[in-house]
Amino acid sequence: MTDWIRLDSTLALPHVDPKQFFANEKRIPKLHQALHQKTLPGNEFLGWLELPEKTDPAKVQGIVDLADDLRSCSECFLHLGIGGSYLGSRSAIEFYQAFQPKTAHTLTIHYAGIDLSPASYYRLFQSLEDREICLNVISKSGSTLETSVAFQLCLDYMKKRYSAKELKKRIVVTTDPERGALLHLAKEAGYRTLPVNPDIGGRYSVLTAVGLFPMAMMGLPVQTLLDGARLAQENLLKPSNPANAYALIQQSLPSHKIMIEALASFEPALDYFTEWWKQLFGESLGKEGKGLFPAGIHYSTDLHSLGQYLQEGRRTILETFLTIDSLPKHLSQLSQPVTNTTLTKLNEQAWKATMAAHSDGGLPCLSLQMRDTTLFTLGYLYYFMMKACAMSGYLLGVNPFNQPGVEKYKSYMRNQQ
Amino acid sequence: MTDWIRLDSTLALPHVDPKQFFANEKRIPKLHQALHQKTLPGNEFLGWLELPEKTDPAKVQGIVDLADDLRSCSECFLHLGIGGSYLGSRSAIEFYQAFQPKTAHTLTIHYAGIDLSPASYYRLFQSLEDREICLNVISKSGSTLETSVAFQLCLDYMKKRYSAKELKKRIVVTTDPERGALLHLAKEAGYRTLPVNPDIGGRYSVLTAVGLFPMAMMGLPVQTLLDGARLAQENLLKPSNPANAYALIQQSLPSHKIMIEALASFEPALDYFTEWWKQLFGESLGKEGKGLFPAGIHYSTDLHSLGQYLQEGRRTILETFLTIDSLPKHLSQLSQPVTNTTLTKLNEQAWKATMAAHSDGGLPCLSLQMRDTTLFTLGYLYYFMMKACAMSGYLLGVNPFNQPGVEKYKSYMRNQQ
Repeated sequence: MTDWIRLDSTLALPHVDPKQFFANEKRIPKLHQALHQKTLPGNEFLGWLELPEKTDPAKVQGIVDLADDLRSCSECFLHLGIGGSYLGSRSAIEFYQAFQPKTAHTLTIHYAGIDLSPASYYRLFQSLEDREICLNVISKSGSTLETSVAFQLCLDYMKKRYSAKELKKRIVVTTDPERGALLHLAKEAGYRTLPVNPDIGGRYSVLTAVGLFPMAMMGLPVQTLLDGARLAQENLLKPSNPANAYALIQQSLPSHKIMIEALASFEPALDYFTEWWKQLFGESLGKEGKGLFPAGIHYSTDLHSLGQYLQEGRRTILETFLTIDSLPKHLSQLSQPVTNTTLTKLNEQAWKATMAAHSDGGLPCLSLQMRDTTLFTLGYLYYFMMKACAMSGYLLGVNPFNQPGVEKYKSYMRNQQ
Repeated sequence: MTDWIRLDSTLALPHVDPKQFFANEKRIPKLHQALHQKTLPGNEFLGWLELPEKTDPAKVQGIVDLADDLRSCSECFLHLGIGGSYLGSRSAIEFYQAFQPKTAHTLTIHYAGIDLSPASYYRLFQSLEDREICLNVISKSGSTLETSVAFQLCLDYMKKRYSAKELKKRIVVTTDPERGALLHLAKEAGYRTLPVNPDIGGRYSVLTAVGLFPMAMMGLPVQTLLDGARLAQENLLKPSNPANAYALIQQSLPSHKIMIEALASFEPALDYFTEWWKQLFGESLGKEGKGLFPAGIHYSTDLHSLGQYLQEGRRTILETFLTIDSLPKHLSQLSQPVTNTTLTKLNEQAWKATMAAHSDGGLPCLSLQMRDTTLFTLGYLYYFMMKACAMSGYLLGVNPFNQPGVEKYKSYMRNQQ
């Protein structure tokens, strides 16, 4: 039977350092056990580990109902959040929408708070004119600079157009349920709130209200995502599993040679998944002078841009191909006249040819194949990656759940002011 | 007087290998002279070097007139091209549009031929329904797979809606003026053509008809871009210039430590410029097992994603910050209530704080500052980068104008079929 995520490491194994590989392989059972027994550094942030199983379907339905309520009075949905409060939901929304036969969006989503560019805000407010608006602001601490700026600007704008009573219908605040400036503000104004789980970090929060509410706003059947994640939770319970096998390869390549992992896909629907993956691995493993630098490769376009480098540049890259086995019927049969096959077949040929060429060019290549384009499989994939990332961090000897360097620029920021 | 592009290497110089730096510095005058005398490998592709000066304004006007003609009968503009036939024009169009006070687009641009995804094509043809269409297909050889597939699919679609006579008005083919399948097809069908300069490679072609025609379609004052490039050509004539200084830093960092160059910006308008830059440097220098891997960093969003890695991960990265000194008036005064300054000021503080933090974290950091958001400055920047890239390649000891590895996947592709 085909698994939901299939790992093929045939073209990477010849590149591993055998000593490191076998030593790491031996460490996995104990680390796996310790992860589940929550005895390793970062154990206060392991809420994601059993989340799929523990999530109450009634709570999920509550999120869906709240979304239905907001959507009923809106044409534009303002999503304010950055990093872990942004990439999870966006990656699912873009993936889902790409494979729908009809664009049934009655709602347009606008992402704000992801930059401080005057041009972005100028354009945003231009596009909101005369449209009915609702808003979800997401920040655990409530003090993230970019999110605060976005929220103040959008709130000022909405206050000019709506009464205080009307704003209560249109604003949902996702934040720490116990404390913080954003919680305080929401309580004062009477905005509805959703909780940020205290035991789940931003980059592991895609399956919580942080990710699920914006997805529900855009009409995604979010329970399906959780169902897929739940199957992944079950399937990856034993130490010998594909997620740990992925982590094992990542941490067994000679570190003086391989410095970068590039996640490559041939499907634009996966572009934001790649961004989510970059944060997950970059922020979890990039510390103490360690970790592979996570890069995204978007084929076919990058074949004609980075293709030369990947074929013949410095051999510093693990290239991990993320592909999709089976497309929906309305897409799988589209033909193209140049080579007289379906587009699907041609795209698959391009993937296989690229992987073979780069492998022969001396790059270690991994293949991760998703079974299909359902949210069930995507949910499975999110969980798979989080589990792989945790093990990868433990093998590397870092705490995969903290981010001690993220706040550093903020202290320098104060010096600028 | 402020220069159009200002290089500040203060935070990178402490990281260079002094021996390598001084040796490279000595080599620059001769290499510079050899570049201009066209005596080095790749000299058959140096058409870009004197292009700004040699471009006949009447020919540019011809391109603009042709664009006006096509636009007059169209609502959707199909741009078919990949790599060097795509990133140049797209980077200019996105930059230009971001800073316009009003979105005056009467024309919507659709980029096709950049992937083989059935989902992309399905969505494309859905969005073209009932709209008036025109098309520009760009391929030097006329045989690029992705472009050929796109052209056949779009041509089949347009033939169902327009007569052969009407198609002659709506299709422009940019290709080799002497030979190739695409030229042949255009001649047979009577489509108008624009030439791809035989002595300019794709990634150096942004200032030729390849880049200028799509820009003119979208209403960009393309002569301004050329004027800026022409000033850059004049200003960078002497061996001691900022473009060569940029190349010198790139090639004087210890190669066993620094493997990656990340171009970082705080302005989404520069996202596609970053993609253009990645191709320029990746394809020019990534050969013979050499070259820095080019990555793009998009702040603020990546501060909350890759920020941790850049602050504390492996110290393998040269981070080059590309920023803009002065914004148009309608943007520069936008205020934000959180820190009670303008957004412009806050975004500048974020840049300076990030660079200071990453520098103190042990990364070599470079700063490249654009004077303003005009196409004049952008034209200057394109030329600056191409000149820097040529010198960087010569210092590295590779031919910066070939791409021997790009075609390799195609031979593997034939094995798949």
